[in-house]
Amino acid sequence: MNEALRTQLVDGIRTRDFAHVRDVLDDLPASGIAEVLGDFGPLDQAVLFRVLPHKLAGDTFAYLPRGQQQLLIKALGQADLSAVLSAMPDDDRTKLLEELPGNVTRELLEQLSPAERIAALKSLGYPEKSVGRLMTPHYIAVTPDRTVQQVLDTIRVRGLDSETVNVIYVVDEHGKLVDDLRIRRFLVSPPERTVQALMDGSFSALKTTDPAINAVALMRAVDLVALPVVDGDGSLVGIVTADDVLDVAEQAATKQIQEVGGSESLDAPYLDISLLKMLRKRGGWLVILFLSEMLTATAMGFYEKQIERAVVLSLFVPLIISSGGNSGSQAATLIIRALALGEVKLRDWWRVMRREFTTGLGLGILLGVIGFLRITIWSLFSDIYGPYWYLIALTIGFALVGIVLWGSLAGSILPLILKRLGLDPATSSAPFVATLVDVTGLIIYFTVATFILRGTLL
Amino acid sequence: MNEALRTQLVDGIRTRDFAHVRDVLDDLPASGIAEVLGDFGPLDQAVLFRVLPHKLAGDTFAYLPRGQQQLLIKALGQADLSAVLSAMPDDDRTKLLEELPGNVTRELLEQLSPAERIAALKSLGYPEKSVGRLMTPHYIAVTPDRTVQQVLDTIRVRGLDSETVNVIYVVDEHGKLVDDLRIRRFLVSPPERTVQALMDGSFSALKTTDPAINAVALMRAVDLVALPVVDGDGSLVGIVTADDVLDVAEQAATKQIQEVGGSESLDAPYLDISLLKMLRKRGGWLVILFLSEMLTATAMGFYEKQIERAVVLSLFVPLIISSGGNSGSQAATLIIRALALGEVKLRDWWRVMRREFTTGLGLGILLGVIGFLRITIWSLFSDIYGPYWYLIALTIGFALVGIVLWGSLAGSILPLILKRLGLDPATSSAPFVATLVDVTGLIIYFTVATFILRGTLL
Repeated sequence: MNEALRTQLVDGIRTRDFAHVRDVLDDLPASGIAEVLGDFGPLDQAVLFRVLPHKLAGDTFAYLPRGQQQLLIKALGQADLSAVLSAMPDDDRTKLLEELPGNVTRELLEQLSPAERIAALKSLGYPEKSVGRLMTPHYIAVTPDRTVQQVLDTIRVRGLDSETVNVIYVVDEHGKLVDDLRIRRFLVSPPERTVQALMDGSFSALKTTDPAINAVALMRAVDLVALPVVDGDGSLVGIVTADDVLDVAEQAATKQIQEVGGSESLDAPYLDISLLKMLRKRGGWLVILFLSEMLTATAMGFYEKQIERAVVLSLFVPLIISSGGNSGSQAATLIIRALALGEVKLRDWWRVMRREFTTGLGLGILLGVIGFLRITIWSLFSDIYGPYWYLIALTIGFALVGIVLWGSLAGSILPLILKRLGLDPATSSAPFVATLVDVTGLIIYFTVATFILRGTLL
Repeated sequence: MNEALRTQLVDGIRTRDFAHVRDVLDDLPASGIAEVLGDFGPLDQAVLFRVLPHKLAGDTFAYLPRGQQQLLIKALGQADLSAVLSAMPDDDRTKLLEELPGNVTRELLEQLSPAERIAALKSLGYPEKSVGRLMTPHYIAVTPDRTVQQVLDTIRVRGLDSETVNVIYVVDEHGKLVDDLRIRRFLVSPPERTVQALMDGSFSALKTTDPAINAVALMRAVDLVALPVVDGDGSLVGIVTADDVLDVAEQAATKQIQEVGGSESLDAPYLDISLLKMLRKRGGWLVILFLSEMLTATAMGFYEKQIERAVVLSLFVPLIISSGGNSGSQAATLIIRALALGEVKLRDWWRVMRREFTTGLGLGILLGVIGFLRITIWSLFSDIYGPYWYLIALTIGFALVGIVLWGSLAGSILPLILKRLGLDPATSSAPFVATLVDVTGLIIYFTVATFILRGTLL
């Protein structure tokens, strides 16, 4: 091997200048790189290999002798590699750590124990909370040229080792997933028929880089206990089983519930999390909410004169703003969950608006009438609201209609807007809705009051 | 057959007086009842059989000739039976519709298509949202006297038909579940070893009458793609697979999120539910919240004189009560979810209180300091708060400490109390916490104000 080249690579590894290493290797053919790798120890080999572009890495791997493939695989799965690579700046690492080629991933996953696999999937560069981190290699795959009898024989031998035999995966000669077939299809077919003849070409697969949460909706839709996972080229590299998806679903639901409740998600059991962490997770949103709620004091300041003239108006402020807040958080929560479940899409925004207009108006009238009656009935027995009680009752009634309607509209449209902006609706909706509805609620209330009470109390 | 007896039974069925039918049959031995059943048509047979006490029904079934067993099974699975029985008053039906004996359930489930099974499990008397409604009969069970080789042969034959072969269930000669063994145990053992020798006697099973939601926690704990289901006598009657448990988990999470958001759970996709239903589901809680929030107007009424004298106090009312409400709903939501996940149990209440005391105090001081500074800084540039601005700043600061602390304590203890009372914490906590914290928040605020501002503003 060219000594200058070797020096360059050794220097590149030592100084962690992986971009340079990549440039150097990129100029060589796959067979040349395979040869170069032979001169390095397993860890350095793994580093060099990991830095290669996706396609080139796959070809290089194929050129390696079998024994060296095994050694490389072992090195790739080790925590050392993860440590070396995580010393890189984040953005560079993301650029360099593409997925491994399908053939390498498969080999690697096959050879590891479940515990090693978790560490390895991390070092393979699959993003946190991605499907790639969840998958297992214990599945049965066959090629289309097989007969039903041959497949059943394979199942008898390999099925015991597989996470599931309910679904058989069909791959082409390059390992690309082309179909998934329920085991029942094989049982009702004559033994000499080929897999090709059974195929319907319809299957649902996850990508390694998909967010893990995607597996939940897909698994519920297809009603299987396992889903296939393919890499960027469509090669089958693993399956995700339902028990793991269940964990993902529960964690995601916990995060959503906690965020809807106005806290950052704890990411740990309530009794286990340290007090400092708890303070930080809860304090963050509480302070943001507090700062934005300060606008209510500013808004109230504008109406100080009115309150001085008619103190009775201030008595209903908590009732008014909590009604707006409640209708807003109701609407926001329903939309947040519907978005998470995929029941509502962004393009449905107009249907959502129409629904919330009707619902909000109905709910507003309901509360408005109750509020009106409450003050009217109270005034029959007491003169706490003075001689103009009926005007106050009207003010409360009309303000409630407006505020509940506005709360429902604002609560439902905000999650959609946040989602459109690429933000997580669950995280950010609660504070925005609360502030918006509280501040605007006060403005609606005092505007209605000014209009109705002008010339009497105001 | 005794003609008088027959007349009594026919009358009992006609008049739906099942309690009487039960009394009559209860006096006969199982063999006698089996004989009596022979005189009736399949639907009447099914009704009579369904009315029998659990133990007696199992024995009677064993006495029936094979052909009649099949006919009875068919009748038991039919919707007609469900219609007949649902004509009974609810409490009577619950008393009469005990679980079927394990041997009958197994036979029945085996013979039905998946669609028929759903209908049948309903008519079998398993409560809604119970494990019994979820289970499937496609599993592999073996007795302890089998050898490893025999079990592997069974798997080769029956495994293809089973929902899962990862776990093999061990039952005794009466069909009682005694162990579950991972398939790997069999693979590493010599073929002539007996199942008995592999058993460790540790297994986790669900009961048919357990709430379906229990399956979620158990499945996450044991990390299997299927769980065994036993009847009241411990007989294995089915398994529950992970994909069905996933549906249960997602539906339960949706219910919780919607309830935490202050709405009744919709039980249908947002865009599919009728407007009338939507109004009803949301209006119910909104009205309850509104009625209880009316207490805030009453509470404010007590402080009308103070507000008249110091209108500036009213400006901070929305800020004060929303801070209490936010800290309360934060704490309530965290505890509701932790209870649902089983991370917090009722007996942990004292630990929860201690955590919330420290956290609430910390958060209260944080917000109190921000509130104090906000008013102080504002007063440097404006005289909106008058000459006693520092006393107002102190009032807001101390009130916030008290209110946030109280909100955290009330928000966390209320779900525990509701759970202790046998109520669903998710459903009822939100309104209680909101009202409690808002009303008491006002009292805390005005009490602090009276104390600090006495002799100056008040």
